[in-house]
Amino acid sequence: MSLDPVLARIDETLPEATERLFDLLRIPSISTDPAYKADCARAADWLADDLRGLGFDASARPTPGHPMVVGHCEGEGRHLLFYGHYDVQPVDPLELWHRDPFDPAIEETPAGPVIRARGASDDKGQLMTFLEACRAWKHVHGTLPGRLTIFLEGEEESGSPSLVPFMEANAAELRADLALICDTGLFESSRPAITTMLRGLAKAEFTVHAARRDLHSGMYGGLARNPLHVLSRILGAMHDETGRVTVPGFYDGVRELPDAMRQQWQSLSFDHAKYLGDVGLSLPAGEADRTPLETIWSRPTAEVNGLWGGYTGAGFKTVLPAEAHAKVSFRLVPGQDPEAIGAGFKAWVEAQLPADCSVTWHDVDGSPAGEMDIADPAFESARTALGAEWGRPASYVGCGGSIPIAGFFQSILGMDAMLIGFGKDDDQIHSPNEKYDVESFHKGIRSWARILAALR
Amino acid sequence: MSLDPVLARIDETLPEATERLFDLLRIPSISTDPAYKADCARAADWLADDLRGLGFDASARPTPGHPMVVGHCEGEGRHLLFYGHYDVQPVDPLELWHRDPFDPAIEETPAGPVIRARGASDDKGQLMTFLEACRAWKHVHGTLPGRLTIFLEGEEESGSPSLVPFMEANAAELRADLALICDTGLFESSRPAITTMLRGLAKAEFTVHAARRDLHSGMYGGLARNPLHVLSRILGAMHDETGRVTVPGFYDGVRELPDAMRQQWQSLSFDHAKYLGDVGLSLPAGEADRTPLETIWSRPTAEVNGLWGGYTGAGFKTVLPAEAHAKVSFRLVPGQDPEAIGAGFKAWVEAQLPADCSVTWHDVDGSPAGEMDIADPAFESARTALGAEWGRPASYVGCGGSIPIAGFFQSILGMDAMLIGFGKDDDQIHSPNEKYDVESFHKGIRSWARILAALR
Repeated sequence: MSLDPVLARIDETLPEATERLFDLLRIPSISTDPAYKADCARAADWLADDLRGLGFDASARPTPGHPMVVGHCEGEGRHLLFYGHYDVQPVDPLELWHRDPFDPAIEETPAGPVIRARGASDDKGQLMTFLEACRAWKHVHGTLPGRLTIFLEGEEESGSPSLVPFMEANAAELRADLALICDTGLFESSRPAITTMLRGLAKAEFTVHAARRDLHSGMYGGLARNPLHVLSRILGAMHDETGRVTVPGFYDGVRELPDAMRQQWQSLSFDHAKYLGDVGLSLPAGEADRTPLETIWSRPTAEVNGLWGGYTGAGFKTVLPAEAHAKVSFRLVPGQDPEAIGAGFKAWVEAQLPADCSVTWHDVDGSPAGEMDIADPAFESARTALGAEWGRPASYVGCGGSIPIAGFFQSILGMDAMLIGFGKDDDQIHSPNEKYDVESFHKGIRSWARILAALR
Repeated sequence: MSLDPVLARIDETLPEATERLFDLLRIPSISTDPAYKADCARAADWLADDLRGLGFDASARPTPGHPMVVGHCEGEGRHLLFYGHYDVQPVDPLELWHRDPFDPAIEETPAGPVIRARGASDDKGQLMTFLEACRAWKHVHGTLPGRLTIFLEGEEESGSPSLVPFMEANAAELRADLALICDTGLFESSRPAITTMLRGLAKAEFTVHAARRDLHSGMYGGLARNPLHVLSRILGAMHDETGRVTVPGFYDGVRELPDAMRQQWQSLSFDHAKYLGDVGLSLPAGEADRTPLETIWSRPTAEVNGLWGGYTGAGFKTVLPAEAHAKVSFRLVPGQDPEAIGAGFKAWVEAQLPADCSVTWHDVDGSPAGEMDIADPAFESARTALGAEWGRPASYVGCGGSIPIAGFFQSILGMDAMLIGFGKDDDQIHSPNEKYDVESFHKGIRSWARILAALR
């Protein structure tokens, strides 16, 4: 079957595709806010309707939270599952938006036209690239492009509480040969990329307790244990002089980057000076003997995300507080066990406490890293298809963040995922004035048409 | 002149003295709250009237803030200046008081009767012990007990903004041979004491800046400098393993405790296990080779009083913050220069910053420690007088906190001060349900009568 008529159809119908996306963007499906529960249901119904119109056997399926949208179509070749999410982040501070976040419009910018609305990039615009590719294919060929399952979530921006139970309860129905996830971006905003390594996450909040009440430093300074000193000392020792994490066992199981991947990454010519310079920094801070890309994609890291205690208001209060608090998280790589990392950190902290201090733990949990098997020829096929669309080679990249769905596809459904997306670094997702470039939307649709043709 | 009739008169007129104190306590002279400006003026006028009634040439003297009350009387012997303050702390949270804080009353407690009201102990009850001693003396002998200057402040609880300018402008008028300050307490609530060493204070608030905006740990974790790590490392290194402060030059000029004072302090049998146990601690945390009393009275200390940065709300946000903040203070001892300590700390912090971090400083200031010359025989005379009243030897003690007025008397007026007070540890000054034991008030008045007799 020929691809060119499908691409031509995509080009011709971009205005109509944009209007459909606008319809979806007008629904304020903010999943974290109960006031928008009906809107989330409305977005799910809108998508199920659209999928049925395309020939999918689709429905919005209830959960204790917001619905899941699931659609199936039969067809030839590999069974592919496509994942996206229809819920969006809250919009506050609303006064920083220069238009109603739920009144989408095309805006001209120096860098080209953009679709401005909450969810334009994350993730309604991205998920619609796949549906529009299916629509053009169906129009040209009369059938959908192969055996597909569509799986759209409505709780991604609010912690996905229903996701794992739903996947476990419907594993047989959802299992496919390979998952496609459209919730990532272009590398450095311009180069197509397939994310094949995702870091996991372990996190812990804890409180160091010393005296049973706040003390005055005039009466107790020096004599009484100051939990801010205890906490500073512990956290200040979490890395050694070379940037290596000092928690015992932290690097257990961590593997070296395969040579093939190292070459791919070297070819990216990642400009870490610019990456850091863009945020006002100049010195890479991580392990001294690792490249910057390794540091953010394939090495585990430890960060203090929050730290507080004592008097933090205006002026001075010479207090020795009773407690000091920290939130610490670890980005994990394949081979690391989140539970073991959490337990190792707890033991390390507790071993450093003076005898009359204690610690309480909150929110200790985590999710493992993910690593896709690029020996599967689908990866090279997709990479070639992306390169053809964007006019430059596509790359395998890592992702410093965690995308838990990819891990769940592996652990619950036993399938790898290809993470392909068209977002740009300046899309302002989760922030006011979110946008999605019309180029991202248009070439995104075309990219999926090419990939689906290549994977059939 | 005989002391006994004076003491008898004090005993006989205790009810009237208590009523006078109640009158003063009914005036809500909260200096920090502009709503009570007229009340502060009223308290000053009440005291000036009372002093004039006693035979002082006294008046309430305007300042840019609340008035100073100054009174003089001529007489024989050493010229003594008595200092106290008539302003009080705010009363919130009001709902924790079990009576109106400005409706004083005698309440019976298992430990004896107490005067319950805001300011009962800090400092209206204490300052009135001196005035009542003068009143009884005048009644018995027809004259005041020697050459006296009374100097009462109305801004002690709100940072004393007018104090230094007033003292400098009126130095010739205020200068005396020795100052008496009644704003301290009994040692361990039972033993009369003269405070002869006061720690000074240096303090600094600072912010460590890294990236120009908050970063996501998935994208920047490990690679970008985390100012919480920088700050933890610095503050965690502020003390070495033996509890000694590591800031270079910190101990410059610090003198060893004189043997005479060391013996005095040893005789106090300070129960540090109880002192720490009362607040839920068991291990002294300061310099390992110093006694607990040295640590809080005569050794300089460094404490983090506040520390904050990153995400401190509920749940988790895997942020690398742009900034981290700390408030640090140092208790100083004689020989240390607050400015040099502040400058040394700044230099030490800055030397530890990575090249792409910076620091901004706020509120760097301080006041020196004070040490009184106990070779002045007035000290031994007062100590003997106190011992006679309380039935146990009085001690020279240190004070871990700072009482700036004592330092100003030294630096501006060139006179030492004897700090003698009758407060108890459970007086709940600055807190709801402040009280002053009737015993403190009664024996406090008698103590001053004895001391004034001894110092004439």
